[in-house]
Amino acid sequence: MRTSRACLLSAALLVYAGFASAYDGEVEKKVFELASYTTVGGAAIPNVRVGWESYGKLNADRSNAILITHFFSGNSHAAGKYKPSDAAPGYWDAIIGAGKPIDTDKYFVLSSDTLVNLNTKDPNTTTTGPATINPATGKPWGMAFPIVTIRDFVNVQKALVESLGIRKLHAVIGASMGSLQAMEWGVAYPDMVDRVVPVIGTAEVNAFTIGWLDVWAAPIRLDPRWNKGDYYGKDEPIDGLALALKTVTIHAGHFGWADAAFGRKWAAADRDPVKSWDNQFMIVDVLDKAGQARAKASDANSFLYLVRANQLFTAGHGNSLEQSLAAIKAKVLFVPAESDLIFPPGDSTRAVDMLRRAGKSASAVTITGNRGHLDGVVGIGRVGEPIRQFLGQ
Amino acid sequence: MRTSRACLLSAALLVYAGFASAYDGEVEKKVFELASYTTVGGAAIPNVRVGWESYGKLNADRSNAILITHFFSGNSHAAGKYKPSDAAPGYWDAIIGAGKPIDTDKYFVLSSDTLVNLNTKDPNTTTTGPATINPATGKPWGMAFPIVTIRDFVNVQKALVESLGIRKLHAVIGASMGSLQAMEWGVAYPDMVDRVVPVIGTAEVNAFTIGWLDVWAAPIRLDPRWNKGDYYGKDEPIDGLALALKTVTIHAGHFGWADAAFGRKWAAADRDPVKSWDNQFMIVDVLDKAGQARAKASDANSFLYLVRANQLFTAGHGNSLEQSLAAIKAKVLFVPAESDLIFPPGDSTRAVDMLRRAGKSASAVTITGNRGHLDGVVGIGRVGEPIRQFLGQ
Repeated sequence: MRTSRACLLSAALLVYAGFASAYDGEVEKKVFELASYTTVGGAAIPNVRVGWESYGKLNADRSNAILITHFFSGNSHAAGKYKPSDAAPGYWDAIIGAGKPIDTDKYFVLSSDTLVNLNTKDPNTTTTGPATINPATGKPWGMAFPIVTIRDFVNVQKALVESLGIRKLHAVIGASMGSLQAMEWGVAYPDMVDRVVPVIGTAEVNAFTIGWLDVWAAPIRLDPRWNKGDYYGKDEPIDGLALALKTVTIHAGHFGWADAAFGRKWAAADRDPVKSWDNQFMIVDVLDKAGQARAKASDANSFLYLVRANQLFTAGHGNSLEQSLAAIKAKVLFVPAESDLIFPPGDSTRAVDMLRRAGKSASAVTITGNRGHLDGVVGIGRVGEPIRQFLGQ
Repeated sequence: MRTSRACLLSAALLVYAGFASAYDGEVEKKVFELASYTTVGGAAIPNVRVGWESYGKLNADRSNAILITHFFSGNSHAAGKYKPSDAAPGYWDAIIGAGKPIDTDKYFVLSSDTLVNLNTKDPNTTTTGPATINPATGKPWGMAFPIVTIRDFVNVQKALVESLGIRKLHAVIGASMGSLQAMEWGVAYPDMVDRVVPVIGTAEVNAFTIGWLDVWAAPIRLDPRWNKGDYYGKDEPIDGLALALKTVTIHAGHFGWADAAFGRKWAAADRDPVKSWDNQFMIVDVLDKAGQARAKASDANSFLYLVRANQLFTAGHGNSLEQSLAAIKAKVLFVPAESDLIFPPGDSTRAVDMLRRAGKSASAVTITGNRGHLDGVVGIGRVGEPIRQFLGQ
């Protein structure tokens, strides 16, 4: 199991998980710029900048590129270390590297920060979103930044990919929100994608998750310091954001994990929660600290934009998912996690069935484990070989 | 399916569920008083008052009493109507009444409001908790009210039961938090209980649910009007409380229900959520309204006390659940709901296994359905016959 400092979902884990050896190459963070990007909704965003990184080498005919798309609270740091002293490598280092399932001896693997990325205060993240200065006003956009969709994330990635002279991707692979981007690539640009691997994902965000995403975001709006998004340069809504991130952290877990890791233990062995409101159970204390730690690197408005982008997602953004999926030409491998409570395995099953009914090549392999949604990150090594095989087909 | 106006979980449902005919008898709300109650933790609470109601008649030897214990956001209105014009009968009217599985022609069925009941502004609820005037100060207790446990709820019920001359209960039956009380009755007072029926319940609140309970409560503490519990007579933390109740409402649901009831529909057909922050998905709008409606009848501090009481629950409140369960003499029938995400069926299975290993009579019958935890309320009719049989054994 490997974790990334720049990854929310790892915050609780850092306490418990060991670290394994990293991708050997030295990773360099680069920045891709677009003078202007017009959203699907028709809004023009000037000076778009997103960070990206790559592992391995692009071959002569530029046919060996694999794009990794990141999850809700993640960034483009999917593998390797920036410097040997980094505490941890990128979040999917277990499967990306020389000789690993996503083999950097064969493939040119690249990954980019999305628009409205959450980690605006992380020096290794570059994004354009509500915390970015709007050149027209000289001030951060705040909630005046256009509402963006997963298709917009994909369109910026497409401009990056094309800037490298790549006309076709060997695969697009992503976890959670990354799976939405992978599916969108397959539907929106079917001639540019040979394989799609949605990990802990779905072809369409279901109603229950639409509701939960709003519950995640609601504490930000409840925090008076949010001030309708106008907080830059003032006291930020750090408490609301920390609660939002705490909610994400528990939602990404599962019963079995919590029982094994914490049980009914108290945060301090001599402080019984029956005796004082100040005394807490260990799981509550760990979740609090995870939320607070992550809030420090994150931006509250960006969280709201990400929530809306996820809620709006149905592959292809059309009126009917079935019609949209008909466009896909790529082979698709869904990789659900058995204990996932955010995009449960049934989401993958439904998508595979729908693709097969449309005559597409679709299958699924399940990550076993009790870590919930997070198994798509920390348990990814357990499906490394099926992913390797799929990429070789 | 039947619902109760005094029941949080029904708030979202009222829009969708039809109403069936009610228990025929006229229900009268009564109040039970104790001059003083001393908590298990040693704190004295003067002037304890709790509401209660009953259906059917106590027989001559007082051997036909069944106690119904209520869920987190419920009260003692388990069956019938106060007057014919009531919009809905009590929450378990499907199984309580003349000829029904909990047959009021045979049994004397009673139910009482717990300590720290949530519904302090509902005229049909009487409780003693943080919103109650502390006679020592002439002001509401607020967060100075003692932390109470499920055992304390049970002890007050025991005083009520004994005041009626009842020495033994034919059964204690309760849903969710009511299941905790039912288990506690069996462990704490084994000679007073012949049968225990924990519905959508557990013998011990697991770590994951301990964490989630805190996530439910956190928006109250985040609302500046909470003011550390000192808000009586001032602006109350209604927004934080509404978000807490919204979170409970979705957590009590399930994927299948949300898909069927809402899908990806918008709150208003002409207001696309991609176009404005003011436009919402239907499920979000319904959850918002459910939370806001319930907040009007509820008390924020009481919510915090209920959360703590639930987190603290392990049957018998001892060091080892296995040891505690050894005390039980009652037959136990667990009734999990298959799609429950709060106390999932595994909680019931583990409890049944543990009871059997200790040589007890324990079994389970599952409520099928896609309504999640709430199936323990709205789906209870589907297990009416197994409950009837169990009560007759």
